[in-house]
Amino acid sequence: MNLEGMRVMGIDPGLTRCGLSMVEAGRGRAVLPIAVGVVRTPSGAELSERLLRLSRAVREWMEEYRPDVVAIERVFERGNVSTVMHTAHAVGVLVLAAAERGIPVHMYTPSEVKKAVSGNGRADKRQMTTMITRILGLGEPPKPADAADALALAVCHCWRAPLLERARLAPALSQGGLH
Amino acid sequence: MNLEGMRVMGIDPGLTRCGLSMVEAGRGRAVLPIAVGVVRTPSGAELSERLLRLSRAVREWMEEYRPDVVAIERVFERGNVSTVMHTAHAVGVLVLAAAERGIPVHMYTPSEVKKAVSGNGRADKRQMTTMITRILGLGEPPKPADAADALALAVCHCWRAPLLERARLAPALSQGGLH
Repeated sequence: MNLEGMRVMGIDPGLTRCGLSMVEAGRGRAVLPIAVGVVRTPSGAELSERLLRLSRAVREWMEEYRPDVVAIERVFERGNVSTVMHTAHAVGVLVLAAAERGIPVHMYTPSEVKKAVSGNGRADKRQMTTMITRILGLGEPPKPADAADALALAVCHCWRAPLLERARLAPALSQGGLH
Repeated sequence: MNLEGMRVMGIDPGLTRCGLSMVEAGRGRAVLPIAVGVVRTPSGAELSERLLRLSRAVREWMEEYRPDVVAIERVFERGNVSTVMHTAHAVGVLVLAAAERGIPVHMYTPSEVKKAVSGNGRADKRQMTTMITRILGLGEPPKPADAADALALAVCHCWRAPLLERARLAPALSQGGLH
């Protein structure tokens, strides 16, 4: 199972701040950082204007970096209802951008990401930032938090992808080969 | 305040079923039906595939009927969490389609629509269908329910738009005219 060279875009979805990251899977568990950033849209603007700005920014990223796959955080009901709805609207626009380019999308819960990256599903922000900085060999911790979360999502997918791939192929393999 | 000829697209958002309607404001409170339909996406398909199909269908409608404004139901936390999230993702995609064409979007709660159309914010499905059938002069009640809801949203906007327009212009008018 060789996924070396696979480009993964990590997205921490949001309308006020949306974390974006791009990494490339290396040999073994190595992950190489390519880009990280945060898209902001003004909270005073109309929803349609904000979704349009977010959509344009994420499409530019996809055009520039050509990811093979997108890893995005699954949204749950938690905290402020209006914020959750805004984030869910943003997810729709982000997933659509990937779908329009035929890029597969994987969703991960925050605890799946924490577990994959730090070994602990309840790791706090500081622990996660420390792990991400170390894994990617960064000179300093990524900022702001949304950027670190986007990187963690991408790393999570790099490490989960071989297992997902194996599971996908398992039925064919158990029947004596790929048909 | 003459909004005669204004084309309004009503959207009852959803991923499994999304109601779409198109109406035109006539003289006074007259509203003329132009089209009504329901877009369905298979519940077994991936989220990205479903959002892509919905996006294409709603864009085709916008290309064909060229609405001046979109009226869409505001999503709340209610019922099944997964359904609410799917609907919220759909809203993101639907609002984006309007924003990309520069079409303004207005959101209405279910009770605002009920109040505007029937005079009663708690009207039931049957009452609403009866009112919509009468207002639009339809030969028979629109089906399914999502289609009737989409028509009700469009009618609601036709009747609220003159008030919204007056409110928007009020500051200028109170200063003695439009600048």
